[in-house]
Amino acid sequence: MIQMTLIQIDNYGPWTVTPRPRRESDLQRLQAQLYADLNSMMGMKKGLVFYTRFDNLLAVTNGLTEEDHRRIQISIRNRYPFTVSMGVGTAETPHEAQKLATIALQKQGGAQSSDRKEILAIDSLADDDGSYLQMAHIDINSCTDTLTDIESAFDTNFLVNKAQHYLMTKLIKKGALLFFIGGDNFMAPCNGLTEKEIEDILIEIDEEIGIGLKAGIGRGKNVEDAAYMADIGLEEIRARGNDMWIYVVEKEY
Amino acid sequence: MIQMTLIQIDNYGPWTVTPRPRRESDLQRLQAQLYADLNSMMGMKKGLVFYTRFDNLLAVTNGLTEEDHRRIQISIRNRYPFTVSMGVGTAETPHEAQKLATIALQKQGGAQSSDRKEILAIDSLADDDGSYLQMAHIDINSCTDTLTDIESAFDTNFLVNKAQHYLMTKLIKKGALLFFIGGDNFMAPCNGLTEKEIEDILIEIDEEIGIGLKAGIGRGKNVEDAAYMADIGLEEIRARGNDMWIYVVEKEY
Amino acid sequence: MIQMTLIQIDNYGPWTVTPRPRRESDLQRLQAQLYADLNSMMGMKKGLVFYTRFDNLLAVTNGLTEEDHRRIQISIRNRYPFTVSMGVGTAETPHEAQKLATIALQKQGGAQSSDRKEILAIDSLADDDGSYLQMAHIDINSCTDTLTDIESAFDTNFLVNKAQHYLMTKLIKKGALLFFIGGDNFMAPCNGLTEKEIEDILIEIDEEIGIGLKAGIGRGKNVEDAAYMADIGLEEIRARGNDMWIYVVEKEY
Amino acid sequence: MIQMTLIQIDNYGPWTVTPRPRRESDLQRLQAQLYADLNSMMGMKKGLVFYTRFDNLLAVTNGLTEEDHRRIQISIRNRYPFTVSMGVGTAETPHEAQKLATIALQKQGGAQSSDRKEILAIDSLADDDGSYLQMAHIDINSCTDTLTDIESAFDTNFLVNKAQHYLMTKLIKKGALLFFIGGDNFMAPCNGLTEKEIEDILIEIDEEIGIGLKAGIGRGKNVEDAAYMADIGLEEIRARGNDMWIYVVEKEY
Repeated sequence: MIQMTLIQIDNYGPWTVTPRPRRESDLQRLQAQLYADLNSMMGMKKGLVFYTRFDNLLAVTNGLTEEDHRRIQISIRNRYPFTVSMGVGTAETPHEAQKLATIALQKQGGAQSSDRKEILAIDSLADDDGSYLQMAHIDINSCTDTLTDIESAFDTNFLVNKAQHYLMTKLIKKGALLFFIGGDNFMAPCNGLTEKEIEDILIEIDEEIGIGLKAGIGRGKNVEDAAYMADIGLEEIRARGNDMWIYVVEKEY
Repeated sequence: MIQMTLIQIDNYGPWTVTPRPRRESDLQRLQAQLYADLNSMMGMKKGLVFYTRFDNLLAVTNGLTEEDHRRIQISIRNRYPFTVSMGVGTAETPHEAQKLATIALQKQGGAQSSDRKEILAIDSLADDDGSYLQMAHIDINSCTDTLTDIESAFDTNFLVNKAQHYLMTKLIKKGALLFFIGGDNFMAPCNGLTEKEIEDILIEIDEEIGIGLKAGIGRGKNVEDAAYMADIGLEEIRARGNDMWIYVVEKEY
Repeated sequence: MIQMTLIQIDNYGPWTVTPRPRRESDLQRLQAQLYADLNSMMGMKKGLVFYTRFDNLLAVTNGLTEEDHRRIQISIRNRYPFTVSMGVGTAETPHEAQKLATIALQKQGGAQSSDRKEILAIDSLADDDGSYLQMAHIDINSCTDTLTDIESAFDTNFLVNKAQHYLMTKLIKKGALLFFIGGDNFMAPCNGLTEKEIEDILIEIDEEIGIGLKAGIGRGKNVEDAAYMADIGLEEIRARGNDMWIYVVEKEY
Repeated sequence: MIQMTLIQIDNYGPWTVTPRPRRESDLQRLQAQLYADLNSMMGMKKGLVFYTRFDNLLAVTNGLTEEDHRRIQISIRNRYPFTVSMGVGTAETPHEAQKLATIALQKQGGAQSSDRKEILAIDSLADDDGSYLQMAHIDINSCTDTLTDIESAFDTNFLVNKAQHYLMTKLIKKGALLFFIGGDNFMAPCNGLTEKEIEDILIEIDEEIGIGLKAGIGRGKNVEDAAYMADIGLEEIRARGNDMWIYVVEKEY
């Protein structure tokens, strides 16, 4: 089971333009700080946050308790000009888990409701025994040589975004998610997908848009362990000359 | 003329996996801090940075001198476990400016070359008289009501990413760029595009994928002013009940 | 028993001037970020860090395990241009605990040894049953009215520093410590001191240098709880018109 | 002439305990972030901030205009749960400059007045021609060998604080200021003091409390340059075997 948390800044949109639009570089700093900060706090408990839309962030949070979530909300309130609400859901697939988390929070009021403030809406928490994660760390083959060092920075960015969009489109249909994590790297919570299904998606994208991808697949009891195993898998593929689509590593406890 | 800066972390990919893969939550914090930090330093000079790929960041930097860039590089070296190289280019269109910036830097060595370190490669700088920016702040109509408060968090994220991908695809052909800036918001440096061209792109996207967009368009001598004018434009459209595609505001000096 | 951790930046002094002195505003940012960051990570486990000398920081860490310390060291290594070593000690008094922590670390090499790197030297850890903390939150009576709003900023700062120096001098003799925590506030880990001893110190300082102080004294199983109880104690004194020297609050579990 | 800015968090004390005392580790993070942040923003304009009391910070700001100060205030408002007010003063001596800055701000209302909010009270600004700074970077001789590596961390801290208190006491009488900047280092804005006066203070402290100090003295048109020259002076003394009290370096433009 994967436990996911939706972190939503309360009533953020209206705040950004009240009394008049706030300086964009300040908003970018603020959003990036919140993102870094959540990864600091959740990271201490072996969780991992994805920036998602910056004002709505999805995190994999197996191992984080209700109290942990509450402490993080209070810490944000104590240091930011806004509060955050959270929804938590647990399910067999990542898509279902974030959906339960979202629904739990939506029931408490809208994102731009001025009444809803610092809600912690828990649909379900994963217990220690039931926690299990499969994460795929996907990157583009030879991105530096074939793109970064040759194409313009934005054109490379465009192709990375294109790969992201195609990956998202295909993974979402299987109940998996995909997040961009910088460079030419993506992280996909993909509990429930078989190795074959993941490999097929990479092959399809290569055929459709000519972008070669590979995936380290990691499994563990928390997202830190699973993501680390996925990194190791990716290193294994590189060590073998990039002639494999996927490599699976399971954390032994 | 728009001046753009490419900021590239030197030899970052190899560093992230040496001697073994580094913890993902730490890397996300580090990247987000760098992004926030660059916006802090460039923001003090009325520049604006986009996270782009996090290890390769594009910024609009009219008003920032060679010395300003150098100071920022030194400050990064003093506080981070890596250095950054930069390329700077100036042109009539944003795409051309970032291309010149990229080429200037590429000439000095590859992104993963261990020899290249803290290069500042300036193709061209905009002078005060020649500085002129057109920025479009684009958002999705009624995103909170129709997506955030109804769909699952990831599904909303997926649709926002879809809008981003379609916008990028169309804008890049016109020499413009597009960056996601959080929520349902995009910022497009778009010097050289006519109002008609921008409006047509929004109409096309509405017809093709059914996502309704609007754009505040701002013009000024630096990106802070132009982005702020774009924000004002967006507010104007909202004040008029969202029944316009675009609204242009020009900064008066 | 109080558990204290000494965090020491490895070989920091030489680094700050190599190859030539680094910009002071950058060093201040770096040191402040490290301090904030350690409080973020240790705070998630209910620890509390004091800035002390910024390159040598003392923390009260009851509840933090060896693995917690190690994780924090790795996270620093992953995001800073330096590493940190740590010593951990546990004792009946704060002074003895930090002394054991220091000795454990000193045994592993000097602060400016280029050989010593990311050492974790544990003399002793407090177990859950043995953890007990007494913290005094001390402030200056009517500081805003009688100093901040009347004297020059530096003169007020000077008087606060004077109070700090007198408090440190007296507390250290009793095996207690004192840290400035901003404003006109001090935090004293003071396991083993009686209420009478604390009150006497405050009375002596009033008589010797005419600075009126009060102290909320808190007790608990971790420093977060004990410090919070101390805050509540201080609020109690304020609620009673500041006519008491001390007020003790014990956390109930 | 030295230009100094007092940055004061508006109504901070009451906020820290409303509705009940906030978690201490959060407050320490918040204060340290503000300090780092101000150094980031002021540092971009070659200013330098000292943490002072964390809720009241003194900065040397020659070169920063009224607009620069205003931009920083707005940026704080946009990212923190509070606002800051500022006072600015310029004078022949640092003590007089910060006094003028303080008075200008005090006239606008008390630090804990809920009415006073984001005031920018400018008594006087230094112009480019009139800007001149003398900064002394003072450290303790052989601190690592004789203290850090031998004494307990808190005992070393105590002696550093003792040196600070004696330095402050003597410098304030001459119209100079002193700030602790980490490790065994102090920075003294000391416009108007002769080399002989500075040397005499160091000799007196050696005689009175047996702590050997040395000072690099730097002069320049802004605090970044002057502090850097002071660093160079300190390096010169070290290169000569620490057998000098002071060494003066003047920035050439």
